[in-house]
Amino acid sequence: MPLTRISLRAGKPADYREALTVGIQRSLVDTFNVPHDDMFMLITEHTADNMIYDRQYQNIRRGDDFVVIQLTVSNTRTVEQKKALYRRIVDELGKSPGVRPEDVFINLVEVDKENWSFGNGVAQYAG
Amino acid sequence: MPLTRISLRAGKPADYREALTVGIQRSLVDTFNVPHDDMFMLITEHTADNMIYDRQYQNIRRGDDFVVIQLTVSNTRTVEQKKALYRRIVDELGKSPGVRPEDVFINLVEVDKENWSFGNGVAQYAG
Amino acid sequence: MPLTRISLRAGKPADYREALTVGIQRSLVDTFNVPHDDMFMLITEHTADNMIYDRQYQNIRRGDDFVVIQLTVSNTRTVEQKKALYRRIVDELGKSPGVRPEDVFINLVEVDKENWSFGNGVAQYAG
Repeated sequence: MPLTRISLRAGKPADYREALTVGIQRSLVDTFNVPHDDMFMLITEHTADNMIYDRQYQNIRRGDDFVVIQLTVSNTRTVEQKKALYRRIVDELGKSPGVRPEDVFINLVEVDKENWSFGNGVAQYAG
Repeated sequence: MPLTRISLRAGKPADYREALTVGIQRSLVDTFNVPHDDMFMLITEHTADNMIYDRQYQNIRRGDDFVVIQLTVSNTRTVEQKKALYRRIVDELGKSPGVRPEDVFINLVEVDKENWSFGNGVAQYAG
Repeated sequence: MPLTRISLRAGKPADYREALTVGIQRSLVDTFNVPHDDMFMLITEHTADNMIYDRQYQNIRRGDDFVVIQLTVSNTRTVEQKKALYRRIVDELGKSPGVRPEDVFINLVEVDKENWSFGNGVAQYAG
């Protein structure tokens, strides 16, 4: 159910980008109870001048490997689950593909359960 | 008012991509009461390794023509209207450009009516 | 905290695109009380056939320089602040890089304060 948009600087090899998706999915499964096969992610690669970010906001030193992860999810998680997701994503991406914690930006957009159709024109999660 | 983001595999001809927008707009007009000229859509084409999705989640067999449609809309529709929109989009895109029902993923993001400006710096829908 | 997605026709020079980000950020600082260094923006350039919009909805004459600005923000602003933001963005972008008011489309997506992590896996704005 999450629809994940990953934005990063162009030029990383395919296995680096794949590792991002694997680490994020593992984090969603373990902290948000997402089924392991409920995986839908879009990656957009940007030139440097199309990815603008402050390199020290909140005293966090961001570098060229900065990645923006925006996840649209159903509005059923607690604040504690959200905090666990952030920690877990940073941990997973640190292990593979090796992203610094400072370079991981995460944003959640929440929607109602009936706001999804996974195919066939059906609202699979509607009551 | 809807802002529609369409994501698909790169390489489809222009008339295929145009047919997607025409079918989605027709569906919005008929099920969400959107004015026919209230049409704002962005298409992003992805390489295969930048569009990651499970090919059988919910027992739906997705193929290479999988398309993700994320629509930001005002929060004024009923669950029945949402279900009607999903059915209608799948029906329209099946007729033209000929997308299989299994390959249509839809997500709605809802916002308040004052969250739109269609130009001139005015919140046209605010009370 | 705002995550801003800017979509425009491909081909504008870098200083034009940079001016868009500067004008939007200035507007956020002055109307939404965003810290000046809280700046995170993604620009996507589209071919003409991947950017579909009505050229006269709401009697607003849109041209080729049409730009879509979708901002994800925390849900703490009043309607008056939103109206002020729209006016200010149009004013700023009119001055530089010189966008016509008719060509500025703005949409706000609102989220809870705990829906952000600016790095290090921490929900910096959570209570």
